[in-house]
Amino acid sequence: MGRRVAVVAAGSTAYGDSPVGLREMVREAVDECAKSADQGVDLRRVGEGFVGSLGFGGGQLGNLAAVLNETAGLRLVSARRVENACASGGFAFRDAVAAVSSASCELALAVGVERMNDQTGLRKRYWLGVSGETEWERMAGLTFPGVYATMASRHMHEFGTTSEDLASVAVKNHGYGALNPKAQFRRAVTLEDALKAPVVASPLTLYDCCATTDGAAAVLVASEEAARDVTDTPVWVAASAGASDFLAAHDRESLTRLDATRKAAKDAYARAGVGPGDIDVAEVHDCFTIAEIMALEDLGFCAKGAGGAFTREGQSKVGGKVAVNTSGGLKAKGHPLGATGVGQIYELVRQLRGHAEPGRQVGGAETALAHNVGGSGATCAVHILTR
Amino acid sequence: MGRRVAVVAAGSTAYGDSPVGLREMVREAVDECAKSADQGVDLRRVGEGFVGSLGFGGGQLGNLAAVLNETAGLRLVSARRVENACASGGFAFRDAVAAVSSASCELALAVGVERMNDQTGLRKRYWLGVSGETEWERMAGLTFPGVYATMASRHMHEFGTTSEDLASVAVKNHGYGALNPKAQFRRAVTLEDALKAPVVASPLTLYDCCATTDGAAAVLVASEEAARDVTDTPVWVAASAGASDFLAAHDRESLTRLDATRKAAKDAYARAGVGPGDIDVAEVHDCFTIAEIMALEDLGFCAKGAGGAFTREGQSKVGGKVAVNTSGGLKAKGHPLGATGVGQIYELVRQLRGHAEPGRQVGGAETALAHNVGGSGATCAVHILTR
Repeated sequence: MGRRVAVVAAGSTAYGDSPVGLREMVREAVDECAKSADQGVDLRRVGEGFVGSLGFGGGQLGNLAAVLNETAGLRLVSARRVENACASGGFAFRDAVAAVSSASCELALAVGVERMNDQTGLRKRYWLGVSGETEWERMAGLTFPGVYATMASRHMHEFGTTSEDLASVAVKNHGYGALNPKAQFRRAVTLEDALKAPVVASPLTLYDCCATTDGAAAVLVASEEAARDVTDTPVWVAASAGASDFLAAHDRESLTRLDATRKAAKDAYARAGVGPGDIDVAEVHDCFTIAEIMALEDLGFCAKGAGGAFTREGQSKVGGKVAVNTSGGLKAKGHPLGATGVGQIYELVRQLRGHAEPGRQVGGAETALAHNVGGSGATCAVHILTR
Repeated sequence: MGRRVAVVAAGSTAYGDSPVGLREMVREAVDECAKSADQGVDLRRVGEGFVGSLGFGGGQLGNLAAVLNETAGLRLVSARRVENACASGGFAFRDAVAAVSSASCELALAVGVERMNDQTGLRKRYWLGVSGETEWERMAGLTFPGVYATMASRHMHEFGTTSEDLASVAVKNHGYGALNPKAQFRRAVTLEDALKAPVVASPLTLYDCCATTDGAAAVLVASEEAARDVTDTPVWVAASAGASDFLAAHDRESLTRLDATRKAAKDAYARAGVGPGDIDVAEVHDCFTIAEIMALEDLGFCAKGAGGAFTREGQSKVGGKVAVNTSGGLKAKGHPLGATGVGQIYELVRQLRGHAEPGRQVGGAETALAHNVGGSGATCAVHILTR
């Protein structure tokens, strides 16, 4: 990487069924972001804008860069949309970091947004479907719950992972969601609730799957010099890494790991000079509970196959080896596709600054990791942040 | 900017109605790109991939980053789609330049692709429409020809620009398209042909409007050190700039200029340390003939209002003050939306290396400019390249 880069401000809408449209959502997230800067910040200093969105544009599906500039007040700034299926936000952040690192600007704004509830059911399925593989998966009726159910079945077969293990992820994440005022689902669930919920795609039940969510998040990225003007508590980007694997699950080497995650994590750890044991708090991409279990393994928090036991034993809770999805994760905080990767950074900035709510704040957190996946695991961005 | 960056290889499909699908188009452009490197290049060295596409994905509309990696053989490389309406390719190239400049990699691949002919007429209109403003323009029936016709009418009113001036752009660009084996329309047209053609949106006739095009283009961007391994004739990126204005034409200050173009051009000239008079050859975004006339003015090649006369007098031809759209431009070479910005770089690399066909090669071209616009002028990328 080039220059040292920091996150200096972050904002987010509440996640859920938004009463307002896409533009208002962007404005709300950007306003909170600007206000979160200790010393205030004039957004007219922003030199590059990046908006992560998959395609649920609330009627305006293309040219969201211009929408970003209009709503955030970035007059004639260089801006673009970054799309990488559900990792759109993670890559919007990644490319904002690169813009500052390359010295093309001192301040860059990364926004993620999705307005899923504007769409009819048919259009939702269409937009979700096209972010997975189309020819072999979508056209055959294999939607995302089906692909992840296949992974879960194989994980159970190879490693003895159980439905209770999967449900333990949901229980943990709903527990944290209950403590997060911005979460879509602010209520705890019991293991029994999760296990007896209707089956979506066997072995996945309703509580194994994330829901349909509106949301927007914004973070401001700065060079070291610019950071000092904006905040006394910069959060440093120790590493940014990404990887894209084959689009279709059947083309990949294994159904029980995501090589895109493993490659991005390996690169991120190497660049940051840390290992999985150094991570205090992580936001990982739990679009389905099995996805969190595989992420625990692929990110190196536990051995391959041990993700279920790691969860069941509470090692991924606050007070465990690594606190995972203290926001509630995609499962309970919600998953507004393109917003998710930026929203993860928002959560980790709060954690590293000690601003998360009691019960879900990780005491003295110094090193954090964000893991954002696109498609059925084809694409991944991993970021490591430090105080 | 950080490190010095060069274009070291470039490839393109022929533009037109492609007999093959999106993946094959990407592969063809990337293969030609790799083969164009004087000393050969192993694409497994590519560290970042950027694919510019608006949305005509040939059935695979999301997660094109994974498709790029599969077809180009970039195993587990960090890749993303960059969308900026019709400037998607220009921003994919821009962000590839930033990636190398920031030292996040030594080699980056920028690909642009659009497979417009896969879509039915209704879906084409939908996809084109959403890249303009939706609420006030598209929903009111004001499609792109209508917006540009409004600009043309205003330009005529303010500056006395004539239908003959507009038609002169088409005649010039079709003349060059006739000499370009990769152009969609490889035949010259007369001023009379252009003037008597059916009206699309008054005052624009059929020959004032670009057509529906399939195409893909690829360029390889390298650090100075990596460039020396790949080629003896690097083309240097002297400047990369971008800007986004208001999405809707009615929100902008003027109908007869594009402030996004003016801002991006101003920044690009400043960074490159050159002025409009130094540009030997330019590819400009002539989605409509009036767009080329405004671009000549907004890029500073002539005074505001003088673009029509400049064209009529042959100043934008080879041998004039600046050779514009020697490829045939969007008008005759074709406009496969997301591919266009990358295809412009492909053309300029050929010009700067002296590889363009006789009759359209600019003798001794040393400095070149690419101008790629998105939406009805909301977004713009400007690049300056030198030998």
